[in-house]
Amino acid sequence: MINNILFDIDDTLFPSSEFAALARRNAVRAMIRVGFDAGEEELLRELHKIIEEKGSNYDIHFDLLLKRLDTRNPAKFIAAAVGAYHDTKASIQPFPDVPTVLLELREVGYKIYVASNGIAVKQWDKLIRLGVSQYFDGVFVSEELKSGKSPEFYKKILKKIKAKGNGCVMIGDREDADILPAKKAGMHAIRVLRGKYSKTQRTSRADAKIKDFRKLPPTVLKLSR
Amino acid sequence: MINNILFDIDDTLFPSSEFAALARRNAVRAMIRVGFDAGEEELLRELHKIIEEKGSNYDIHFDLLLKRLDTRNPAKFIAAAVGAYHDTKASIQPFPDVPTVLLELREVGYKIYVASNGIAVKQWDKLIRLGVSQYFDGVFVSEELKSGKSPEFYKKILKKIKAKGNGCVMIGDREDADILPAKKAGMHAIRVLRGKYSKTQRTSRADAKIKDFRKLPPTVLKLSR
Repeated sequence: MINNILFDIDDTLFPSSEFAALARRNAVRAMIRVGFDAGEEELLRELHKIIEEKGSNYDIHFDLLLKRLDTRNPAKFIAAAVGAYHDTKASIQPFPDVPTVLLELREVGYKIYVASNGIAVKQWDKLIRLGVSQYFDGVFVSEELKSGKSPEFYKKILKKIKAKGNGCVMIGDREDADILPAKKAGMHAIRVLRGKYSKTQRTSRADAKIKDFRKLPPTVLKLSR
Repeated sequence: MINNILFDIDDTLFPSSEFAALARRNAVRAMIRVGFDAGEEELLRELHKIIEEKGSNYDIHFDLLLKRLDTRNPAKFIAAAVGAYHDTKASIQPFPDVPTVLLELREVGYKIYVASNGIAVKQWDKLIRLGVSQYFDGVFVSEELKSGKSPEFYKKILKKIKAKGNGCVMIGDREDADILPAKKAGMHAIRVLRGKYSKTQRTSRADAKIKDFRKLPPTVLKLSR
């Protein structure tokens, strides 16, 4: 019987790929608005190269962008870009079906948890901004567990919540980070077909696939039997 | 004859003391809202101690606050505090008389500049958020000039804008940073009686004192004669 439901955050609880793309676009638009002499698409291409090289948690993307573009007095453009980027990231909203379903799952007696890859403060910032942090019985972030989303990561969570694998189901959008390692740790897993990975990771070892959260309560119930 | 008007930013163009106080208060309120078990005033007192020790440009105020309060799993509270703090700082607005007067001064032919102590990206962020960055013919920040607000700082600006001291007037709220060193560099100076320094620095060597910006154009004209 399933008593514990674990949730990924990005592209599971909110459209993170969309917001990230919008944040980058708003950043280069802000640079142009304060006088940067280049096209939007050209700046976006350069920025994407930097993100590919340095990863998305790199703090000085825009410093490096302006350095590569040989900009004198870059402070104005960095300020415009970083400000617009953070303002967009600060405006994240959950998928519309998320708050109601989380509340419903709590109310029928499930324990619900977050199981997330990333930096703890950043992931908490998302949960608070999404207005869902208070629903969860626990939040587990890889930084604090000292382990990325491997079977080990999920086994550590099982120990912390004092549960067996078959009493848990992991909900996430990524086959590699959410579905496969949770299954290896003995959990059930439901794949959410949202965000960019719904297009690139087409085959799935998940026990079920759902497109939106309204299907979640009956799907968990079915796996529980 | 005065052709160039230099402006301080904090507590001259916008009520920075008020916004800083509000940002700190909103930060501790956000901590309490996500479950921190302490009173608002108690948390504010601890935070103020840290700001006094470390200065206001210290990036990890809240990490240190939670460390001193012996908080286990501080990520949630740091995220709440830092998020609310930055959201408040992102919502700064100019004093109501500022945009119109800046525009008027430009239109009658003055060159207008910013002369500010601080980190260039942070000061640009303020100008952009205040919606006034496009009015200025130049922005000079101590970090880039490699000199705090000393006579040297103002002399460097004179060189950059190719002006003589008596062709310039510095507008600011601080006797020590704005009025005295600008006067020593040969400039005129007008003290704006706004923010916390209007209460603590009561005597002034300024050529004139004003309470709001509507008095600025006639006051500059008078000094110019």
